[in-house]
Amino acid sequence: MTQRVVIIGGGAAGPKTAAKLRRENPDMIIEMYTDENHVSYSACGLPYYIENIIPDIEELLVRSPEEFERHGIKVFLEHKAIKIDKEKQTVIFEKHPYPEQIEVFYDILVIATGARPYLPDIENLHDFKNIYTLRKLEDGIAIKNAMKKAKTATIIGLGYIGIELLEAFIKNGLEVSVINNHKFIMPMFDEDISKQIEKHILEKDGDKIKIYNNQHAVKITGENEIASKIITDKGNEIETDFIIISTGIVPNSEIAKEAGLKTGVKGSIWVNSHFATSYPKIYAVGDCCEKTHIVTKKHCWLPLGSTANKEGRCAAINIASGNCDFQGVLGAAVSRYFDYTVCMTGITEREAKALGYDVLTTTVTKEDRAGYMPEAATITLKMIVDSKSREILGIQGIGNGDAEKRVATVSMAIMNGVKIDEFMGLDLPYAPPFSTAIDPLLNALQKIEEKLKENT
Amino acid sequence: MTQRVVIIGGGAAGPKTAAKLRRENPDMIIEMYTDENHVSYSACGLPYYIENIIPDIEELLVRSPEEFERHGIKVFLEHKAIKIDKEKQTVIFEKHPYPEQIEVFYDILVIATGARPYLPDIENLHDFKNIYTLRKLEDGIAIKNAMKKAKTATIIGLGYIGIELLEAFIKNGLEVSVINNHKFIMPMFDEDISKQIEKHILEKDGDKIKIYNNQHAVKITGENEIASKIITDKGNEIETDFIIISTGIVPNSEIAKEAGLKTGVKGSIWVNSHFATSYPKIYAVGDCCEKTHIVTKKHCWLPLGSTANKEGRCAAINIASGNCDFQGVLGAAVSRYFDYTVCMTGITEREAKALGYDVLTTTVTKEDRAGYMPEAATITLKMIVDSKSREILGIQGIGNGDAEKRVATVSMAIMNGVKIDEFMGLDLPYAPPFSTAIDPLLNALQKIEEKLKENT
Repeated sequence: MTQRVVIIGGGAAGPKTAAKLRRENPDMIIEMYTDENHVSYSACGLPYYIENIIPDIEELLVRSPEEFERHGIKVFLEHKAIKIDKEKQTVIFEKHPYPEQIEVFYDILVIATGARPYLPDIENLHDFKNIYTLRKLEDGIAIKNAMKKAKTATIIGLGYIGIELLEAFIKNGLEVSVINNHKFIMPMFDEDISKQIEKHILEKDGDKIKIYNNQHAVKITGENEIASKIITDKGNEIETDFIIISTGIVPNSEIAKEAGLKTGVKGSIWVNSHFATSYPKIYAVGDCCEKTHIVTKKHCWLPLGSTANKEGRCAAINIASGNCDFQGVLGAAVSRYFDYTVCMTGITEREAKALGYDVLTTTVTKEDRAGYMPEAATITLKMIVDSKSREILGIQGIGNGDAEKRVATVSMAIMNGVKIDEFMGLDLPYAPPFSTAIDPLLNALQKIEEKLKENT
Repeated sequence: MTQRVVIIGGGAAGPKTAAKLRRENPDMIIEMYTDENHVSYSACGLPYYIENIIPDIEELLVRSPEEFERHGIKVFLEHKAIKIDKEKQTVIFEKHPYPEQIEVFYDILVIATGARPYLPDIENLHDFKNIYTLRKLEDGIAIKNAMKKAKTATIIGLGYIGIELLEAFIKNGLEVSVINNHKFIMPMFDEDISKQIEKHILEKDGDKIKIYNNQHAVKITGENEIASKIITDKGNEIETDFIIISTGIVPNSEIAKEAGLKTGVKGSIWVNSHFATSYPKIYAVGDCCEKTHIVTKKHCWLPLGSTANKEGRCAAINIASGNCDFQGVLGAAVSRYFDYTVCMTGITEREAKALGYDVLTTTVTKEDRAGYMPEAATITLKMIVDSKSREILGIQGIGNGDAEKRVATVSMAIMNGVKIDEFMGLDLPYAPPFSTAIDPLLNALQKIEEKLKENT
């Protein structure tokens, strides 16, 4: 009998699973359900839509429901999954805008419900219309409209999305306040690196940006459902035309938890390296599911769009009776503030120390290509190694130059447990417009090697 | 007793050896001899000096003789090594401009004599003043002067240097003829990739460039020591204001060979993985010495500036009684024609087939970052794997987008014998301005994996 695969979620992991599964198996019935009114879009592009680098939001749509249908994948828009009955092998969906319910049988279920913004505990947070999070297409449209009418904005929480929105708002002439719960912005980086990022942002646009570090919003006030002021725990009162909450995300795992599936870090859905959950015939992929960290070998929750795509592909191979063993994640990520790149892979010095590694770090600041080339620009690379195993644990790269290329190369090294001795002689392409005769990366490694020698 | 280290050569490998050795050992006497009148310069920058991206040739000087002297490294300019007496442990130098000779004793000798242009057998080649090769600073100055006065140029041989000079000449308004001994230009690439490079160049500047493939110059004619015409073996007669010979290089290994040192591929000086030659107390580094290829494990001769620097550093560690075991080379290289990058690492399909691998290749053409970003541009990646071992053998990347980042990442993979299965899940930094959710590199790997599955 023909198998029916039901996929809950239409963001990145769901559509990727559906598309790959169709290529692997032309016979299976594949159905994809989403509570949104479109599928398969690039949420990562939303800050650039808001900034107006991308004028038309349609450009963010990767594939239309019609394209899926053409490949025999049935798409059900505005269907919200509300219950999984794992014994009966059914999912109950609520069909919007009516409270109508349908029950759908599956042979194989794929949960790709993603994540949603985390909302901190702020007084009156839910009383106003001009407070936004950025996750879905509608959010992007709403924020762009708010920005166009505004002169000031406040961003609560400054991570990857926060910094991209900061660029968008500054580019569009706004004055921006940032309220940051941590000692430093971009808290996924080590403090020394974060401070350099903050310094760069303020040197460039300090007249238009005010950063309130180490404090959190406690209360929002306003009139007629329009927020106009934020009060922090340190007593700062910040006037603002609208507010962005970008204090992280939480997995949409409730439906899985209620069905009795095992969950893990931060409530994300536990899966094995084949993306099977704790219950037969149910898989989970993308931002809703737990990850394994390649460096620490521990469970973690590092939800990223590139990972979601790889996971969807891998899960589809397994569902189609293939064999795809997922190695895990490094948390490789990149963002930018105008021409200034911030990126990292692996673990930070802070994390490495907390995990008990024999941590050794080196930070080098070098030009990214031959200094005499007009396009040469500075990058800073902070490399973290374990002095006992001599393995590379992580790297953070920032600057106006091409830090990201170096971080990509180190991702490959960490994936394969490369020790610094095996890395030293790395043969990289060299020409003056592209790098330096001794790449900044090799320079950092040479410094690490010299430190190791001193220590022994 | 204090050891005296004598280094012959002041280009890249010699100065690097000297500088690293000084850091490793503050006591050794270090002397560096060169037949030029400067040391430590970036020959790779010369095409950009000629193009006038770099107005002042001084910018290509990495370190002056005075800087070396400050670190206790004695520099002897315009001293040409003419004989090594390995039993007596001496080198005889001829001091220019006088035919004076001096004999220098060494405890350790480092041969870093580099390479020189290969001159093909062309009738009257040596009779004219306006025929140039590009290797030294003086060559760059002479070519720039010739270019300024000229309307037409002819380049014989189109490899990495040829393509950079082609850009320089076109940028400066010249019409350029190219005479190419091979079936296709850039013969280090596979034919399919080379043809795409040629197609791009001619689409962009075909009105100013004429390429004569598959033929060689047999005769040059002119008057008053000024060449004005080249005749090819296919009977083409090409009028030209000046001529560039860029048909490759040969190692400056005669002095080593005459001293009885073992030589290898193309006459380059044989060394072990510590850069020791076949005779005690003599090392060789840089373009003059033989390499080991990391993929094929065979001896080869792939002289590149980035390699010379790494070799100099590694040799210095060994001379200072440390232990640096050099892994070898991949032939990683990059060049560009205006915004169009050409790069590669590892071996080509042609080489892989000749060596008897079970060759499988995939070529993908993709945008290098999210298609909706204005800076997105196309790249083509050709990946070569061995279907038996599933190891990656090489990659070639071309296009207006960032192909080089992907080639750098693959260099790291090949260095460590990464199999495609270990590569598939590679966690790369992703954001729309930097890459695509599924990087073109992973896309190429996925295609390879699908082909492998079909074949089994």
